[in-house]
Amino acid sequence: MSILSPCTCGIDVHAHVVPASFPSYMGAAVPAGWPSMAEAKPCHKHVMMAGRIYRTVSDRCWDVGKRVADMAEMGLGRQAISPMPELLSYWMEPAAANDLLRYINDQIAEMVSHSGGRLTGLGAVPLQDIDLAIAELHRLKHGLGFAGIEIGSNINGKPVGAPEFDGFFAEVEKLNMAVFVHALRPAGMDRLVGPAQLQQVLAYPTDIGLAAASVITSNLLLRRPGLRIAFSHGGGTLASLLPRLQEGWQVFPVLQESVQEAPVAQARRLYYDALVYDDPTLLNLIAKFGDTQIMLGTDYPFAFHDRTPVARAASAIADEATRRLVVRDNARRFLGLGEQVSP
Amino acid sequence: MSILSPCTCGIDVHAHVVPASFPSYMGAAVPAGWPSMAEAKPCHKHVMMAGRIYRTVSDRCWDVGKRVADMAEMGLGRQAISPMPELLSYWMEPAAANDLLRYINDQIAEMVSHSGGRLTGLGAVPLQDIDLAIAELHRLKHGLGFAGIEIGSNINGKPVGAPEFDGFFAEVEKLNMAVFVHALRPAGMDRLVGPAQLQQVLAYPTDIGLAAASVITSNLLLRRPGLRIAFSHGGGTLASLLPRLQEGWQVFPVLQESVQEAPVAQARRLYYDALVYDDPTLLNLIAKFGDTQIMLGTDYPFAFHDRTPVARAASAIADEATRRLVVRDNARRFLGLGEQVSP
Repeated sequence: MSILSPCTCGIDVHAHVVPASFPSYMGAAVPAGWPSMAEAKPCHKHVMMAGRIYRTVSDRCWDVGKRVADMAEMGLGRQAISPMPELLSYWMEPAAANDLLRYINDQIAEMVSHSGGRLTGLGAVPLQDIDLAIAELHRLKHGLGFAGIEIGSNINGKPVGAPEFDGFFAEVEKLNMAVFVHALRPAGMDRLVGPAQLQQVLAYPTDIGLAAASVITSNLLLRRPGLRIAFSHGGGTLASLLPRLQEGWQVFPVLQESVQEAPVAQARRLYYDALVYDDPTLLNLIAKFGDTQIMLGTDYPFAFHDRTPVARAASAIADEATRRLVVRDNARRFLGLGEQVSP
Repeated sequence: MSILSPCTCGIDVHAHVVPASFPSYMGAAVPAGWPSMAEAKPCHKHVMMAGRIYRTVSDRCWDVGKRVADMAEMGLGRQAISPMPELLSYWMEPAAANDLLRYINDQIAEMVSHSGGRLTGLGAVPLQDIDLAIAELHRLKHGLGFAGIEIGSNINGKPVGAPEFDGFFAEVEKLNMAVFVHALRPAGMDRLVGPAQLQQVLAYPTDIGLAAASVITSNLLLRRPGLRIAFSHGGGTLASLLPRLQEGWQVFPVLQESVQEAPVAQARRLYYDALVYDDPTLLNLIAKFGDTQIMLGTDYPFAFHDRTPVARAASAIADEATRRLVVRDNARRFLGLGEQVSP
């Protein structure tokens, strides 16, 4: 029996977790970047990295009760939860990063298990070491029952489409897991003039756009046609880059040789969240990338998150069938949720 | 008397020049990057830089007769011509760059003088030395009668909106000259997977988008309200960045303090070319940035140029008044052309 009330039918694929605490590192010397938590104002903690406050976050990062209550207000019946991107720790020594990510993944599994079926886990793997990453991928699938993983838009500067990750994606495809790509340590930082927040505001969408383009120019989805890979922030700048990439592909023979399917067609094989804060921009994404490829994303519970994802989609999208796809059905397919799971 | 036939009414603000030859350097040692020309296939030359072929270009880069004939076929009555961006030479020792740019500017002036009123000059200035740049700016205005200048999207990595260029822009505003910002040595190169052409195809629009954003976040147009500044390639990724910049400005108090007018409003103070190769993308630019701010741009005569700019605008833009603005009138205002000049 379906019990989808109009206001709790949405699935949010872009929401984050910070554990309430981190273990002290048990090895000889604490690795650079190993996080810890420090008390802050009520209901908040400081995430400490390298001896400095990286970000002050609310207890909604780890408190499942508050999260599920907020979800109901936001019209969400389900959220796929993934680590705060800076925790992905690609720059950390691999064995230490592996320890940290296993801990975080276990915390996410705990949250999922206490959510009454409202949360779905997207775990983290140490992509600076492909073997360790594949081992943790298997644990996520078979040990923790996760739907997929979150990865950065680049791994220590190498974009997602770089050839060294192809073997990893082959394994992801084989395990039938979803990949959510989130902007991380972005390109273009030296082009910003203004406060530090411009990293999130301008450089994040820049880096995710280039990451998505790298997946297209490297033909990843042609080699791994079963891979379900989604890009944060509406694919960032990809919507602006794509027409020029398509025209360049038509003009330059060398591009046509190396990119084996039209960029506009490849772009329609990728998934994107709808986190663009602007109705015409959202409608443009749907038109460009296809109504089967766009899903709700909120960036909950960080300061810069969309508080009305379902209402926004409902007001922006006139066609009811399209709205249903964007609000729920595309995310169900992306996350590989069975028909018996609701929503 | 106006003699605007339907097919030669357009003004193209984005077209490039390479001189037929460069002088040998007269100083003690040839500066790194000093260009020269080498013979190539018929009607072509290789632009040599640092002992390597930078690009092979056609004689349409310097041949005014062929250019004017092509313009008629493209529906263009006027072209604003500017140096091939790599010639801007910001990375060269300032005095040598100044010599080179003065030579190039004189070559552009020659082309303008032989064009029967069909060409308008956009010169180059050595922005690695603000004093030299201002001196050449005055010569361009008073000596050569140029309408404006072309500058890079960044000057040795510093974006156009960086505070060190404010004094220069004050002088540009005082002289009532137009500024055409072209992508150059872009950010994001390490995020590309594929052939070298992806620099032009993906990293150029990325860098110009960040450059335009830097002008907004630094409030340049609020300090210099008379400045007319245009961005190549439709402003690149700015159209994708702007809704998130606007939302971030509303969410983060520190951004609202430092950015003194709403980003969406500031974006409508800038000019953009229409070089986006896609009708919905062009219409989106017109809607987002205003029908008074978009002008034809072709990238003529390089391989990757728009051969049908007027026809494309005519088919994309239904409203005749808007079409007239985009095809001609906005460029007239941007370039500061008097009413007596046709078109």
